[in-house]
Amino acid sequence: MADERGTLPGPDSHISASSILSDEAEIVEMIRRRGPLSRTDLARLTGYSRAKITPLVGRLLSAGILEEIGDGTSQGGRRPRLLHFNSSQGCVIGVDIGATSIDVAVADLTGQIFERLSLAIDVRLGPQAVLDKVRACAEELLARRGADPAQVYTLGVGVPGPVQFATGLLVAPPLMPGWERYPIAAHLQRSFPRARVVIDNDVNVMALGELKRGVGVGVENLVFVKIGTGIGAGIVCHGEIYRGSSGCAGDIGHIMADPGGPVCTCGNTGCLEAVAAGPPIAAQALAAAEAGDSPFLAERLRSSGALTAADVANAAAHGDRAALALIQRSGHLIGDVLASLVNFFNPSLILIGGGVSQIGNQLLASIRQRVLHRSTPLATRDLRVEFASLGLDAGVTGAVALALEHAFTVERV
Amino acid sequence: MADERGTLPGPDSHISASSILSDEAEIVEMIRRRGPLSRTDLARLTGYSRAKITPLVGRLLSAGILEEIGDGTSQGGRRPRLLHFNSSQGCVIGVDIGATSIDVAVADLTGQIFERLSLAIDVRLGPQAVLDKVRACAEELLARRGADPAQVYTLGVGVPGPVQFATGLLVAPPLMPGWERYPIAAHLQRSFPRARVVIDNDVNVMALGELKRGVGVGVENLVFVKIGTGIGAGIVCHGEIYRGSSGCAGDIGHIMADPGGPVCTCGNTGCLEAVAAGPPIAAQALAAAEAGDSPFLAERLRSSGALTAADVANAAAHGDRAALALIQRSGHLIGDVLASLVNFFNPSLILIGGGVSQIGNQLLASIRQRVLHRSTPLATRDLRVEFASLGLDAGVTGAVALALEHAFTVERV
Repeated sequence: MADERGTLPGPDSHISASSILSDEAEIVEMIRRRGPLSRTDLARLTGYSRAKITPLVGRLLSAGILEEIGDGTSQGGRRPRLLHFNSSQGCVIGVDIGATSIDVAVADLTGQIFERLSLAIDVRLGPQAVLDKVRACAEELLARRGADPAQVYTLGVGVPGPVQFATGLLVAPPLMPGWERYPIAAHLQRSFPRARVVIDNDVNVMALGELKRGVGVGVENLVFVKIGTGIGAGIVCHGEIYRGSSGCAGDIGHIMADPGGPVCTCGNTGCLEAVAAGPPIAAQALAAAEAGDSPFLAERLRSSGALTAADVANAAAHGDRAALALIQRSGHLIGDVLASLVNFFNPSLILIGGGVSQIGNQLLASIRQRVLHRSTPLATRDLRVEFASLGLDAGVTGAVALALEHAFTVERV
Repeated sequence: MADERGTLPGPDSHISASSILSDEAEIVEMIRRRGPLSRTDLARLTGYSRAKITPLVGRLLSAGILEEIGDGTSQGGRRPRLLHFNSSQGCVIGVDIGATSIDVAVADLTGQIFERLSLAIDVRLGPQAVLDKVRACAEELLARRGADPAQVYTLGVGVPGPVQFATGLLVAPPLMPGWERYPIAAHLQRSFPRARVVIDNDVNVMALGELKRGVGVGVENLVFVKIGTGIGAGIVCHGEIYRGSSGCAGDIGHIMADPGGPVCTCGNTGCLEAVAAGPPIAAQALAAAEAGDSPFLAERLRSSGALTAADVANAAAHGDRAALALIQRSGHLIGDVLASLVNFFNPSLILIGGGVSQIGNQLLASIRQRVLHRSTPLATRDLRVEFASLGLDAGVTGAVALALEHAFTVERV
């Protein structure tokens, strides 16, 4: 992260990256969330004296972050001028780095996305190649808009591996050679020297997207489950992303799901992602095709030489029983693990997302069935288990939300 | 709870139960935590104007909650008077209701316990009989101290069943006939009409005790596991008790631990508490004794006609192999469940408490072994798994902490 003290970079302004104070951030956030307020409103809402409010507002006005507009309702005397948050004064960038693609979006300071780009690139090419592409995409999006890189307040970046949130470094990422402890923030700041860069795990970012812009709005406690090549969870606790003591909370892919299951990449046996994620579904599909259990998958195997989770989805959509059974089995295994977590964490919402979640309704039905069966009645009384609402946009939407969260707020250190 | 708005009952004072404001509570908390402060300090620390501070402090002084003492360091001019928190001006009561006993303690407003009583009573006698005993104990403790019931600010009460925290009502308690939705607060307020009563599940209360007065001090994320007749967990998240969306977070006793296990009271098979808590340990001990696998337990069975988890502890302490194997099996089952929860929640501390935890070090060693084996290396890198530090005092210590937490702070509604 660019600045651990959480100060606000004010491009083209009298306020430099290190000079905004937490009191100023509090005022900006208050006006951003509540809409236009008078200085008197601010004094009443913050409890601060007028003598304290006046210079803070003055600095924010001269930085262009606040503007004076119209007149408020008079309480007798002169009608007060209202202070308005100038959302077009700067922008944020959201970056979703996946295993095989990157998504970059530019948004105004209300989170409205106005330009977007996606491109295919393998994360295993290493951080320099991938992050140079991210910079090029972001610069192109800004150029399209006629905006200056100096107008960027924050970059929010989601990466497909475990992140030490305080430092923004990847720690022992299993599928990302060369990324371990690579200084992602410093690299991106070559293009955006005054911007703050905030980095988080992709699943946390997706959970944040749902919390801020999806079905999770207003939910206090939720679990977002991403099913893809691996399986991971993003946790929202008391309305905030919960990262745990070492930053690896939500790593549910290595929970034991099947004592008789195969050996996982981590060395243990029967891990959830080794028995229920995309690759094991594809492997089971291959076995079914070869055993003659599924004419549909056998035909597909003959024509393409390999099978994927998407083929299983397609087969199930055509009524193939073996494919439906595979999906159901995966759902039951995921559901059993989630049932344990529901008893422990008692969320009110579980969202199922990630590429493999698109495999069909049978998956959701099977997960839901096991959660309801194996969790306590009290824990499931008000629990919803649903597909994620943002689909494939969850990552980039969440990355914008991450950037925005850190544009004006002050870190808890 | 006596007052959902979180106001402070001020006995023998000008401040009635409904008249203290959150600003006053903030000032009291600040002085209570930091020690004596001047009005100027308060203005600086809160950001409030002197015009706002002065009447707030005035009300707290006349209520006796604050006192003026000594002189502070002068900054030039007149030396400021310091405001001091008067911890002897009132008291709080902690009540730990167990399945077969109650513990009651009276403490001053710093949490110092000065009188205590324990007595055996079966919770199945129902709420009226048990709560009348609690009232009698509390009245006796106050009388010993020469204190008036009107001086009691708050009662913190731990009960052995699921509590809807906002209302203070027990919801579907499995082992407490007659307690469902019984108005515990109103009953206790017959003796303490001006006190606020805060009720929580006993395991949450124990976790709070460790957090405020035990090895959990300063820990952000921890899990307290109580092993007794059942198995439950208290969760601390971001330094606060986490109760979940329906108030039943931590109900880990019904997580599936052994697919081939027996049917649990809840109707499912293989629940953790059905295979690893006190009663199944005793049942397995009986089987071992009858099968001739344990001369020690067989002898004990002959002399007393039954076996308990304490007999297993005793046998293990005498080197009985069958007893050691029973303890180890229970520890492994608990450890496997905790390993899943560690991957999900990534706490930095797990505390093992409750009556059956006293069964011996082999239990802790077995739990630890499985947690380290089955959790990811990142999640266990900074994880400690230890016995609870407050032992059998965790409940009443936590109940006092619960009372104190709500004596001056304002609820988040």
